[in-house]
Amino acid sequence: MTLERKHTNQRMSQIVIHGDTVYLAGQVAQDAAGEPSGAQMKNILERIDGFLGEAGSDKSKILSVTIWLADMRDFDAINEVWDAWVAPGNQPARACVEAKLAFTKFTVEVGVIAAR
Amino acid sequence: MTLERKHTNQRMSQIVIHGDTVYLAGQVAQDAAGEPSGAQMKNILERIDGFLGEAGSDKSKILSVTIWLADMRDFDAINEVWDAWVAPGNQPARACVEAKLAFTKFTVEVGVIAAR
Amino acid sequence: MTLERKHTNQRMSQIVIHGDTVYLAGQVAQDAAGEPSGAQMKNILERIDGFLGEAGSDKSKILSVTIWLADMRDFDAINEVWDAWVAPGNQPARACVEAKLAFTKFTVEVGVIAAR
Repeated sequence: MTLERKHTNQRMSQIVIHGDTVYLAGQVAQDAAGEPSGAQMKNILERIDGFLGEAGSDKSKILSVTIWLADMRDFDAINEVWDAWVAPGNQPARACVEAKLAFTKFTVEVGVIAAR
Repeated sequence: MTLERKHTNQRMSQIVIHGDTVYLAGQVAQDAAGEPSGAQMKNILERIDGFLGEAGSDKSKILSVTIWLADMRDFDAINEVWDAWVAPGNQPARACVEAKLAFTKFTVEVGVIAAR
Repeated sequence: MTLERKHTNQRMSQIVIHGDTVYLAGQVAQDAAGEPSGAQMKNILERIDGFLGEAGSDKSKILSVTIWLADMRDFDAINEVWDAWVAPGNQPARACVEAKLAFTKFTVEVGVIAAR
């Protein structure tokens, strides 16, 4: 199977494509750091749209998502953004748990496995 | 590769099948909410049995499991149930870490990737 | 697709091979328990090298890594070891979050999905 990486730096790749399966790095809100979790989630989902597009995929092909939330009290706020964004009829498997993230300016992180 | 989803609501699918790989949503004890973690684990594993069956798989084909435990002091309790359930000779890769879950009535959540 | 397991005990397998995809159990520093997180990370990465080798893979083919860190203050320490080890140009997708682990003698755990 083919193996391709995009947006690779010394630590990780944002996109890894193995045959028909795409793995994204845990996405944080690079353009909404320090903002409320809902706004961060919106930025994260825009980033996911972009990276999936580069991988020849899109949100209708997401297989599984892991959401790490720094404070579970933001569960409703991120879900409101998620529910409005996710592709109707093509919702992925999902898990959402609380975890402290690497930088306090980020309060949500999303890992993605997708088909393409 | 084929892409099929089952038990899909506005937020997620409980089952996503991509070719020969099955992804389940993070499973919680819907029928044992508020019970001790061992009882919750038992219910979760019953649910996994059911969903894998619907996906044309079974517990002997699980590839990888992630267990999120709200309180690591329940580690032995959930392991006792897990060890009795898991298919002998076909134990999956596994990781178990502590994480607060979305609802306090649930103290265990299990993510599954399986073959079929 | 083929399905093969190695280093299987009553609870889990350290290696699960599904076709061209390899899943490793969450790796902890079995040979560096209680040592600082950087030393634990070094031992974990040696273990990953070994298991990937047994699976017909190597670190240049890692697809996705999840790092659970008991204390996020060790982020820089584990990254220093990671950055020196990861295969240049072949860095995987990665997520790193804080989570309490099963045993306090371990402060880092790493989950791996790889191609082969």
